[in-house]
Amino acid sequence: MIKYPDSFKELAECFEMYPGIGPKTAERLTFFTLLNLDDESVEKFSKSLKKAKDNIKQCNVCGMLTDQECCHLCKDDTREKKIMVVESTKDVIAFEKTDSYHGKYHVLNGTISPLDGIGPEEIHLDNLIQRIKNENILEVILSTSSSIEGEMTALYIKKMLEETDVKVYRIGYGLPAGANIEYADEVTLIKALEGKKEI
Amino acid sequence: MIKYPDSFKELAECFEMYPGIGPKTAERLTFFTLLNLDDESVEKFSKSLKKAKDNIKQCNVCGMLTDQECCHLCKDDTREKKIMVVESTKDVIAFEKTDSYHGKYHVLNGTISPLDGIGPEEIHLDNLIQRIKNENILEVILSTSSSIEGEMTALYIKKMLEETDVKVYRIGYGLPAGANIEYADEVTLIKALEGKKEI
Repeated sequence: MIKYPDSFKELAECFEMYPGIGPKTAERLTFFTLLNLDDESVEKFSKSLKKAKDNIKQCNVCGMLTDQECCHLCKDDTREKKIMVVESTKDVIAFEKTDSYHGKYHVLNGTISPLDGIGPEEIHLDNLIQRIKNENILEVILSTSSSIEGEMTALYIKKMLEETDVKVYRIGYGLPAGANIEYADEVTLIKALEGKKEI
Repeated sequence: MIKYPDSFKELAECFEMYPGIGPKTAERLTFFTLLNLDDESVEKFSKSLKKAKDNIKQCNVCGMLTDQECCHLCKDDTREKKIMVVESTKDVIAFEKTDSYHGKYHVLNGTISPLDGIGPEEIHLDNLIQRIKNENILEVILSTSSSIEGEMTALYIKKMLEETDVKVYRIGYGLPAGANIEYADEVTLIKALEGKKEI
């Protein structure tokens, strides 16, 4: 029988909390920590974990991750008077990488999901109308996913924004770049047909 | 341009120190730390890292990882009077998992490698002869790998042990279980021929 020291097992369990890291990988990472990393690196890793968790919070305004009160995207006055509503901070990163959207963001904490007991109150919608007024927003783009929950959330926000005179858009759905029609699923094809454009 | 907070970048860099974790995975793990793990789990992870690195050292006798002065394998008096010499602690785990070797171990810090300036003094061979005498060892099995360095190390230890009257074995090499002769490399086939057995 293999008997690992207790602190070995504890560390391996911590690695196992992450998605995609099973017992084997956790063991390998723990061995690497003990055998290949020097004391200084491990110390740095240990501190970075705590520091990142303590310092990085969601921006008070848009919900993006930041280590300040208000994130650099909200502070940036040169950004266009648009707000893109997304489901998570990772979606912000994805759009920022394209370098073709230059407006602001509003990060929801997921989507409305009645089956899981998540209503509109839980997903950081409370200050959206206030933001539209404060920041003189002209356009809102709803970039939630095309799942049932994503569509429902988009619909809810559209209704909510009827009291303002902001223009509301839903992001375009259709065939992804490089896609083969033969292998596309039916829902994607239907959406692509709906989103047809004159050329 | 995407601008991550500094403590985000620091933590991602720490994840990137590990083998098999590139920038993308490091980013994913950092996001998971910030968005999905609670404060308590991150605190536990941070502490476990330091604790494991501080507490777990190599056993004074055999070189296996342990959180005590002397590991549980060395303390176990019921183990057979054999020593298996391996290159790393991971090899001990591999043999322990088979549950068919019940002797003791001696963990080298790698192999002799003159090109890298690693001589016999560097790889924890100093107390092997002393151990053989102290623990009344009857048999030594050299389980270093079949690389040039592994073979050289095995040969060196064999010579070194000529002054004792211990029996020295080299672990068997040949076709691995389930292997197909057609696809086996030449060195493996030569070793398999050398290791043929009457049935």
